[in-house]
Amino acid sequence: MMSKYVFGVDIGGTTVKLGLFDVDGTLIDKWEIPTRKENKGENILPDVAKSIQEKMQDKDIAKDNVSGVGIGVPGPVDNEGIIHKAANLGWGEFSIKDTLEAIIDMPVMAGNDANVAALGEMWKGGAQGYDDVVMVTLGTGVGGGIIVNGKVINGSTGAGGEIGHIHVNDDETDTCGCGNKGCLEQYSSATGITRIGNKILASSSKSSVLRDQEVSAKSVFDAVKAGDELAKEVADVYGKYLGDALAQIACVVNPEVICIGGGVSKAGEVVIDYVKPHYVKNVFHGSRDTKFALATLGNDAGIYGAAKLVLGR
Amino acid sequence: MMSKYVFGVDIGGTTVKLGLFDVDGTLIDKWEIPTRKENKGENILPDVAKSIQEKMQDKDIAKDNVSGVGIGVPGPVDNEGIIHKAANLGWGEFSIKDTLEAIIDMPVMAGNDANVAALGEMWKGGAQGYDDVVMVTLGTGVGGGIIVNGKVINGSTGAGGEIGHIHVNDDETDTCGCGNKGCLEQYSSATGITRIGNKILASSSKSSVLRDQEVSAKSVFDAVKAGDELAKEVADVYGKYLGDALAQIACVVNPEVICIGGGVSKAGEVVIDYVKPHYVKNVFHGSRDTKFALATLGNDAGIYGAAKLVLGR
Repeated sequence: MMSKYVFGVDIGGTTVKLGLFDVDGTLIDKWEIPTRKENKGENILPDVAKSIQEKMQDKDIAKDNVSGVGIGVPGPVDNEGIIHKAANLGWGEFSIKDTLEAIIDMPVMAGNDANVAALGEMWKGGAQGYDDVVMVTLGTGVGGGIIVNGKVINGSTGAGGEIGHIHVNDDETDTCGCGNKGCLEQYSSATGITRIGNKILASSSKSSVLRDQEVSAKSVFDAVKAGDELAKEVADVYGKYLGDALAQIACVVNPEVICIGGGVSKAGEVVIDYVKPHYVKNVFHGSRDTKFALATLGNDAGIYGAAKLVLGR
Repeated sequence: MMSKYVFGVDIGGTTVKLGLFDVDGTLIDKWEIPTRKENKGENILPDVAKSIQEKMQDKDIAKDNVSGVGIGVPGPVDNEGIIHKAANLGWGEFSIKDTLEAIIDMPVMAGNDANVAALGEMWKGGAQGYDDVVMVTLGTGVGGGIIVNGKVINGSTGAGGEIGHIHVNDDETDTCGCGNKGCLEQYSSATGITRIGNKILASSSKSSVLRDQEVSAKSVFDAVKAGDELAKEVADVYGKYLGDALAQIACVVNPEVICIGGGVSKAGEVVIDYVKPHYVKNVFHGSRDTKFALATLGNDAGIYGAAKLVLGR
């Protein structure tokens, strides 16, 4: 009998998102549980297992009707499903796959959350219909997921697609969360846009609506849409570094589509408009026609992608 | 019956290199034929077929004892074995795989020459024993081959691994062969090192042994080894841009090893020594322990990799 269902799980620092899908990718039910981080996060996977088992009882779903459980976690996960460290959860190095399979007695696949979200957007979101995808998630940081021939690049130590830490500026004096200076994330994340906005406001005497409100990625792009010249300068720093980095990435993997998601992307097409000219200027001609798309699954990308991880290509 | 043999073919602008291997990767015989580029290169594949058939007769090898023919070409080749354009050979867009299979009646696999060379170094050269490899070929240009989980990234239009055209310098005024300005190849290829050497010689009054001879990648690295300060400046430009670009690539694919080959690499470990500090400074910590190795197969990397293309993982 073919399985009918699959579970997708997205573990965050505060809540765990869970989704029940049919194998065609229709989201049947979604819910959340708290992430219990105490005692080095030892309860997190048992809590996930319990919540899934309860849902199966509720819905009267038998185990052999489930393809398995996919799971995205905030940290580097290698091809064998081993997490190398997830500081946010208190986790060290262990096999997520083996651990959860032992509790839940169903096939488990694990991946990095940003990589898994990329898979979700490829399956049912902004990158649907493509096999070679670069996904950029612009949130507090800049996350990435690189998909080649329908498969995520996890990397040899689980650090594939760490595009937020591509070095883009030799002259930076502030330090990135990773310890380096001049990472993409320092310019093109929500935090980065705020940082650059405040810097430009402080060093310029230009009038701007941003002087009368809190600077954020949202207020910057709202001001851009209202024609604010100073906000456009901020957006251009965001777009230059992101466009340059995407051009570099395209010289490596030559994608069909670049999909932009995360909180910053809620500003809409403007987040592409400021990136694309820089991309086109610097990219190798073989990648010049790469499409740009906005992500469409929002916070659900993780559960979709986790489910897809189980189903494979 | 298991096949015993496989052919690897590397098509260059002047000569075609051919190799007969056993399926374990022992090179049994290698030879060359001229590349006949006239009439849009229409004779090239028939010449290859004829040469292979003659070799099989000579060696008394039956067709069902051959796994197939792998072939590397100087141009973008996609996953289906379609070449998109090979200006050097006079070729437009067509299926190399289908065309050669129709003539030779054996399985054919085709790939870009730099990508195929990377596969060769992974199989039997400097990157032997690894699955996740970034190969850089420093010749007239800078070529690249990116291997993830043992498979080359060809890219959606065959432009995967075009790392010589990663944009590394916004201030460049000279134009690269590709039409852009500030490509890696303008600094770290043999041609690039010569260009930078001549620029630094012209703008500096420092004494240097390079003032008494023709500037080339070889003379620059020879001078570096002899302690020449000006030559060290040239090598540092080479190393900075290559190290920066490799750090960016590592944030995308997180390789186990970076393998440096091509004519420039004949200078030996010094070509790594000038790159690694820049790499380590800028790369994400998850890729900081990536190994560096020199390529070992020289001009044979292409035929080895072409043979491996047929054999698969």
